[in-house]
Amino acid sequence: MPLCRIPKSDGTTQYAFYRDGNICPVDSIVDGPVTDENVFELATEIIGAGNAAADDSFQPAPAVLLPPTPTPEKIFCIGLNYRDHAIETGAEIPTEPVVFSKFNTALIGHGQTIELPAISTKVDYEAELVVVIGKEAKDVAAEQVMECVFGYACGHDVSARDWQKGRPGGQWLLGKTFDTFAPVGPCVTLRQELPDPSNLRVQMELNGEIVQDSTTAQLIFDIPTVVAHLSKFVTLKPGDLIFTGTPPGVGDAKDPPVYLKPGDRCSVIVEGIGTLTNQTTST
Amino acid sequence: MPLCRIPKSDGTTQYAFYRDGNICPVDSIVDGPVTDENVFELATEIIGAGNAAADDSFQPAPAVLLPPTPTPEKIFCIGLNYRDHAIETGAEIPTEPVVFSKFNTALIGHGQTIELPAISTKVDYEAELVVVIGKEAKDVAAEQVMECVFGYACGHDVSARDWQKGRPGGQWLLGKTFDTFAPVGPCVTLRQELPDPSNLRVQMELNGEIVQDSTTAQLIFDIPTVVAHLSKFVTLKPGDLIFTGTPPGVGDAKDPPVYLKPGDRCSVIVEGIGTLTNQTTST
Repeated sequence: MPLCRIPKSDGTTQYAFYRDGNICPVDSIVDGPVTDENVFELATEIIGAGNAAADDSFQPAPAVLLPPTPTPEKIFCIGLNYRDHAIETGAEIPTEPVVFSKFNTALIGHGQTIELPAISTKVDYEAELVVVIGKEAKDVAAEQVMECVFGYACGHDVSARDWQKGRPGGQWLLGKTFDTFAPVGPCVTLRQELPDPSNLRVQMELNGEIVQDSTTAQLIFDIPTVVAHLSKFVTLKPGDLIFTGTPPGVGDAKDPPVYLKPGDRCSVIVEGIGTLTNQTTST
Repeated sequence: MPLCRIPKSDGTTQYAFYRDGNICPVDSIVDGPVTDENVFELATEIIGAGNAAADDSFQPAPAVLLPPTPTPEKIFCIGLNYRDHAIETGAEIPTEPVVFSKFNTALIGHGQTIELPAISTKVDYEAELVVVIGKEAKDVAAEQVMECVFGYACGHDVSARDWQKGRPGGQWLLGKTFDTFAPVGPCVTLRQELPDPSNLRVQMELNGEIVQDSTTAQLIFDIPTVVAHLSKFVTLKPGDLIFTGTPPGVGDAKDPPVYLKPGDRCSVIVEGIGTLTNQTTST
């Protein structure tokens, strides 16, 4: 059963099972607490406890959830990884994964607010499937790499196009990493409970209208290929996140372009995981 | 007096004053320990204790030092920020700071080994002055921004040119963030003890030969401008590092090009800070 993370009144965090907008604290089921320190080692126990959780132990989730796994050391993003999206941006189809990053000052959870910066007029949405790493790994072959994956979440790669593109040096980082530009959640679905992530529907719903709609079958570089590629360069660590790319339909490619405005409601819907919803506000 | 960071036998870290290759543990002078949690709040006390440290309390430094400040949340790098270096790479002079990043899996200290990855044949050196942030900051004006600076260190922006440039999407991240590609040290000189960083000599010595030699007077975007610019996008946090750019003389711009090979000895020398030395090895 998917796992989410909620704040406790003492300032610490607590893990909970998440189902259809309802939660059931994990601590009430598993012997000993599930914590930010041990969560990545307890997949088997978490799955067992989730299967045993009684329906009547669930209660409505709070409006705001934390990012579902502990603060990551690294947030990777893969650009132009859906064939149709690469085409709509006018870019060439990449021959290897295009990799950029966000800082974790950008990370927010389900129900938290995306702040539209005053210095951008072209903030765009991007629905994505996010991979959560569960084991330290370096130079892993694609055939073995899935053992390093803890699970999957919905992610929103919020992108200020006017700072991402057309700037000296051509680096995307600043346009992608404004504070609050990396919503992730509402929960993480463990790899063992979603054994085949290669054909999952990925959608963005903007103010009730579906504006992106594709499946991970359209990925140019699939999840094992992406994780193996990254592990050639850096040591992957438990908690690292990988935004795997976005389907076609981004606002910047529409005619006329559509950008986010204060009060917009963005929901990333990934099949088998859940719906990550965040509203925008001006700063 | 500059501050360095050394490992203790119990697995924790210890701060020490650093002078001409000798160290004096700070714990023996300051009331209460200086730790990764409080170091950024103790600048005044550290400076006072350093001034009071007796010459005979210093002993030779260990061969390996840790990065001089705690593991950063963010490592920013500014590209093409020395006018002459921008020209030597064939790039246009940037009209705003070019910003990219490294992950902290790249971070190593003085005396640790730079690992040359098997998948690159074009690993290059870049000597830099590194700014260490000491206070949380967002949207800070250039006139106030220096109050957020804890100090300065030497940094080596090791760069695999064959992964930095000429790749789909044009992002520099992977070529810049191989494990061990961000040596920082040997020490941090506190801002109050280096009040004018605007004309410091920055050099790279490769196997005993000076190959880069310039001063921070050549920076296109000076330190206050860079820090203020970054704070428009993200919340700066204590411990964040900013590599401020490299002078001309990089190996990739030589004719014929010069790339690092196993056993090379690289020393970044920054006036008023110290000398950061790392040797290379094959992997």
